[in-house]
This record gives sequence, C-alpha cells and structure tokens, in this order.
Amino acid sequence: MVKKTPPPQATIRRLSIYLRCINGIDEEGISVISSRELADRLDLNPAQVRKDLAYFGEFGKRGVGYSVLKLRDHITTILGMKKKRLVGIVGAGGRLGHALALYKGFEKRNFQVVALFDKDPAVVNQVFGEAGAIHHVSEMPRMVKELGIEILLLCIPPEAIKEVFDYVLLSGAKAVLNFAPVKLSSTDEVTVHNVDLAIELESLSYHLSLRESGIPGEWV
Amino acid sequence: MVKKTPPPQATIRRLSIYLRCINGIDEEGISVISSRELADRLDLNPAQVRKDLAYFGEFGKRGVGYSVLKLRDHITTILGMKKKRLVGIVGAGGRLGHALALYKGFEKRNFQVVALFDKDPAVVNQVFGEAGAIHHVSEMPRMVKELGIEILLLCIPPEAIKEVFDYVLLSGAKAVLNFAPVKLSSTDEVTVHNVDLAIELESLSYHLSLRESGIPGEWV
Repeated sequence: MVKKTPPPQATIRRLSIYLRCINGIDEEGISVISSRELADRLDLNPAQVRKDLAYFGEFGKRGVGYSVLKLRDHITTILGMKKKRLVGIVGAGGRLGHALALYKGFEKRNFQVVALFDKDPAVVNQVFGEAGAIHHVSEMPRMVKELGIEILLLCIPPEAIKEVFDYVLLSGAKAVLNFAPVKLSSTDEVTVHNVDLAIELESLSYHLSLRESGIPGEWV
Repeated sequence: MVKKTPPPQATIRRLSIYLRCINGIDEEGISVISSRELADRLDLNPAQVRKDLAYFGEFGKRGVGYSVLKLRDHITTILGMKKKRLVGIVGAGGRLGHALALYKGFEKRNFQVVALFDKDPAVVNQVFGEAGAIHHVSEMPRMVKELGIEILLLCIPPEAIKEVFDYVLLSGAKAVLNFAPVKLSSTDEVTVHNVDLAIELESLSYHLSLRESGIPGEWV
C-alpha cells in the first residue's frame, strides 16, 4: 500500500486540506470527483493532487475520478484520524494557551483537549470550559499516563522550554506541538512540530513583494 | 534572475526557515556554508535545499558553498523583508488577537503591529502595549490608508468574516492572514493566507499513526 519514498511533510499537510475540501464536496451531495475538480477547488495543479495521493497507493479510476466517500475514508486512515487523540495544553494560563484551550476547531477533527497545565500559582486550579481545571505542570507526567494523552501543545515562554520538555519526556507523550518561539527537535521518543507564526507573515511579505515588482497574479 | 516556473508555497515557507538557520550560523562566526551543512541542520535533503534556492537564480559556488552573508541578503530580498511591513490586528480584544498583539516574534522579523481593531464596545479604547488603543473596526479603512498598513491579521469569529472582509476590501490592505476557522480566498486585490491550527495537529496524528504501525523513524 505504501510506496518506498516517504511523502514530504507538505504532502501530509495537503492531505488535511484535501480532507476538508472533500467533506465540503460530500455535503454538496457529490459522490465522485476528478483530480482536476479537486485541484480547481484548492487552486492546485491536478498533477500535484495525483502525485500526493499516489504516495499512499493507487486509488481512483483513470478518467472517472475518486469516490468521495472512499477518498475521505482513505485519507482519514492515512492521517491516523480514525482514532480520537487526547491532547494536553501546557501554559494554558497564558493568552495563547487559553485561546487554544477554547479553540473550537480541534474537537470536530477528533482531537480532544482533556488536560490543562501551567506553573503559575495564580492560574493553577482555574477552570476553563470542558477541559476543566488547570493543573500544576509537575502533575503532567502522571496525568498524561493516566488519561492516555498523546499530544502536548506547548504555549510557554522560551525560558521554560527546557524544564517543560523534561516533564514531556517523563510523561511518555508521543507528540509535541511547540508554539514557543524557539525550535525544538524531535527525539526517538517524541515527534515535535514547531509552529512559527512569523513564517506565515514572511510568506505574505514575499507575495507583497511580487505585487510591488508587478509580477503577474499567476505567481501570487 | 527569476526562473519561469513559480516556486511552490512550500519553498517560500522553507526560505523563512533557511533564513533563521543562516542567522544562527552567522552568529556562530561561520562565513561559508554548503547545501549539505544547511540541509543537515534542518533535517532536509541537500538536493531539496539546492532546488529551493535555484528557483531564484544561481548563487553559491559548486564545491565551495554559499557565502553566509550573501545568502542572507539574497533570501531577505526574495522574501520582501528589507522593507518594514506594517500590520493591523482585527479582533484584538479576543484571546488569540490579544496574544498576537503582544507576540514578540514579529517585530524582530521586520513586521510591526501598529493598529488594533475590534467591534466589541467592551474592548474598544483599551490599550495593549506598543500598538496602543483598540479602535472600532469601522475605523479600519481610514486608518489602514493613513498609516500605510499592508497586512491585516483576522482573529475573529467565523460569523464576522463577511462584514470584516468588506472593510478589508475598502481599506486597500494588500494581504490578510486569516486565523478564523473558515477558508477565505485571495482576490485580485488581496492575497489571503489561511492559518488552520488543526492542520498542525493532523500532521502529528499522521506521525503517531506511523509510530503505531512500527514504520521506522526515517518516516517520522
């Protein structure tokens, strides 16, 4: 089923985008879609869509297209999203941590925030919506194991990273999404993704710069 | 200088990552770096690095490498980052908007948050750090023009998108970074990037799923 070349990270990100698009297509009552139609909706090249999907084996019929339901099922499986993933937020007392604790977009994609952590005594024990009270970060290793949390979101200041990452390693959590403005590396035990909000701005800056130089919209 | 094939969005994103890595290398006092060394530091394939940079013309000497200072200068120019870009935040009274208004990572990358907007009377006129008071969103078109704001960050609920995007079009801002959980499309006038925090989680879920299936770390 899986080819030998590992898919690039960008392909994995696009699978999420395909999935959202396919959900919309299903809601419109469409049952079969071609790579060209899917590409058009997402402003991508059809060859790119076919190449992305081909990393995970052949599906879809040449000249006919993809069954919307089968494609959705297939991508959901590839992304490991059939299983509910439990999430903890570290630094839940901060502004970003707080925003993420209450972000509505996670649950409908099968991620459930079940625990909040912080080390500021002023916020420990405060209750934030369904995820309940904020616990002291020292309770994280025990609670991650007890609750079966797989993913930790780190919304903490850079100077707290080292201490918190020690707790992460103790906890046995398998994945970390790091919002702190310092780069963390994956280890054998933990897969780390670093979110950098300034990168999104830089890529907009590139497009502004193209507009200024009068390069046509095809590039933008 | 610029080749005919437009660089993929993923290449533009990687340029930002190269730039940060190169800044670190410069701080270490290193003046020349090979594509292999750059790739090693970023856990990328050297051919990928060379391909990314080749979109923007040939620089670097075969067998010698890239001058760190020239490479930095070149990427900064490509990304349009020589010029300071002024930024406004819409929905600055919400948790995410508030977090972004005070995010330290933008200014050092030559983005300056100069205006905050919201439509909630309870927060209008509140003062948040250097960007000053929150203005009512109806003042946005005038202020964007007066201050020369180029980029607007939308941190607003989905139901406010239509109204706010009308203000964006009136304002003449050229770029939007949309954090609301609905997809906005670019127009001829405005380049839109949609930030979806759940996508980051989905790509972690994929890696968790690989770990569960025992596929080796090369894939992770």
